[in-house]
Amino acid sequence: MKLSRVGEDALLASLMRQLPASRKFIGDDCATVEFRGAKNLLVLKTDCVVEGVHFSSQAHALDVGWKAMMRPLSDFAATSAVPQFALITLIVSKQTKNDWVKKIYRGLSRAAARFQISIVGGETSGTRGPAVISVSVAGFVERSRCVLRSGGKIDDDLFVTGRLGGANRRRHLRFVPRIEESRWLTKNFALHAMIDLSDGLGADLPRLACASKVGFEIDKKNLPLNRAATIDDAISEGEDYELLFAISPRNSARLQMNWRRKFPRLPLTRIGCLIPQSAIRNSQSLSGYVHFK
Amino acid sequence: MKLSRVGEDALLASLMRQLPASRKFIGDDCATVEFRGAKNLLVLKTDCVVEGVHFSSQAHALDVGWKAMMRPLSDFAATSAVPQFALITLIVSKQTKNDWVKKIYRGLSRAAARFQISIVGGETSGTRGPAVISVSVAGFVERSRCVLRSGGKIDDDLFVTGRLGGANRRRHLRFVPRIEESRWLTKNFALHAMIDLSDGLGADLPRLACASKVGFEIDKKNLPLNRAATIDDAISEGEDYELLFAISPRNSARLQMNWRRKFPRLPLTRIGCLIPQSAIRNSQSLSGYVHFK
Repeated sequence: MKLSRVGEDALLASLMRQLPASRKFIGDDCATVEFRGAKNLLVLKTDCVVEGVHFSSQAHALDVGWKAMMRPLSDFAATSAVPQFALITLIVSKQTKNDWVKKIYRGLSRAAARFQISIVGGETSGTRGPAVISVSVAGFVERSRCVLRSGGKIDDDLFVTGRLGGANRRRHLRFVPRIEESRWLTKNFALHAMIDLSDGLGADLPRLACASKVGFEIDKKNLPLNRAATIDDAISEGEDYELLFAISPRNSARLQMNWRRKFPRLPLTRIGCLIPQSAIRNSQSLSGYVHFK
Repeated sequence: MKLSRVGEDALLASLMRQLPASRKFIGDDCATVEFRGAKNLLVLKTDCVVEGVHFSSQAHALDVGWKAMMRPLSDFAATSAVPQFALITLIVSKQTKNDWVKKIYRGLSRAAARFQISIVGGETSGTRGPAVISVSVAGFVERSRCVLRSGGKIDDDLFVTGRLGGANRRRHLRFVPRIEESRWLTKNFALHAMIDLSDGLGADLPRLACASKVGFEIDKKNLPLNRAATIDDAISEGEDYELLFAISPRNSARLQMNWRRKFPRLPLTRIGCLIPQSAIRNSQSLSGYVHFK
């Protein structure tokens, strides 16, 4: 999975570089752009799930619809943006049962309702291949609360929400993006950089570090693990949809104290810090595993 | 094609009705929504092209990319909205040649540049099936210039831009959405209702009439035909991507005169008018063919 994602990063980056207007938007979780005359930024994100790639044909349709909506919302959480409107594209073969399609919509609809999102448009198409559900979401973020991958600074502390690893059983179909947590964080703290852990810490942390032009140091023994997950699972499995963020060490103690009060049942763990790139032998490596102690 | 589209309308309408927040957005070309603190409306649209459905595997990749971008832009034209940002989802099998993907992006990129649109995000995924290109577009429209399908009034004149029929050879891959024409129209005239002719006059005119709760009367002999296209082609083939709009008959003469001056090479044709529903025997019929004289 990781390798193919890294291949996707490279392909996408190479394609996007060909688009002159697009260079500045490459490689963040959401696009954040100006909307004429508005104080806030317009935030846009699209994501898709494909049968046989992101979900098995045996998966519950309700879960699949839920996941299709929640994946782009996890990117909104990473940006600390508020999702408001969704457009849905549903591509299914003629053999698909109407009941399955209805359950997909019910899953999408429940997920949207969870965050007061209006589904404002839909498109359906036939196909001779596997089913595809693509969801595009629009919303806003206040300029002062918009968090990118690129703002991390040397000596920042790195925190992750929740626990990592072991998502592949069923949890990856039922996750709730950390939007509430992310909005609380930016209301109360100045985050330097943030990303959601969709491809695993081992792929996503190097992305944040790379965008911030810094290195990182992680203490693997400190990683918060889900039950039955190993450290390796936590690093490489992916689909955790937890938040990873960088914050000035001066704020760490206050953050941890206030977090425990606000979200007593959700762990927040300091897993390491950002360091100068010069301190790393192989700063090119996207895989970044060499930096895991 | 038409039948499956009518089936799609019904399926989509039935699914969307299950989503309480979404009722008011059903069945227009674009979603037009409020964006916090902005004077203009935020306009959103998503559309997709599927290999084997919207384009053949033999089609030029450049053309396919162009069409994938231009289809949602045609809905912006129908709303008289200005497109600004696009998100692209590209789903291809591992066997797909890199060169094909690059040409798809070049086609998308050229089409975006034609209307000064920034491609601000992209997502790629694998599949075991046919290729899918999904494009979501965001932009704006001034409240006073937003045109829906539903504003048509009894006695309005019906106009179409350009010529109809015969698009299936190659033109449907190379069309230019009527955004410039649409923006000129709403700058200078009060349009009551508008739609783009993607599924053919025989499917799209009944949609406009139905949304406006009126009937219509068309003089088939007046339809502007492309070379080698028959009247039946003009009614049922689809993929013309011309504009159909309703305007008060008091403005028709001034419109036609000014149009000829502004767009001397593009015909504008009065093809009929809107009439009371009570004047029609079968006002339920979505197919609407009974109303074609």
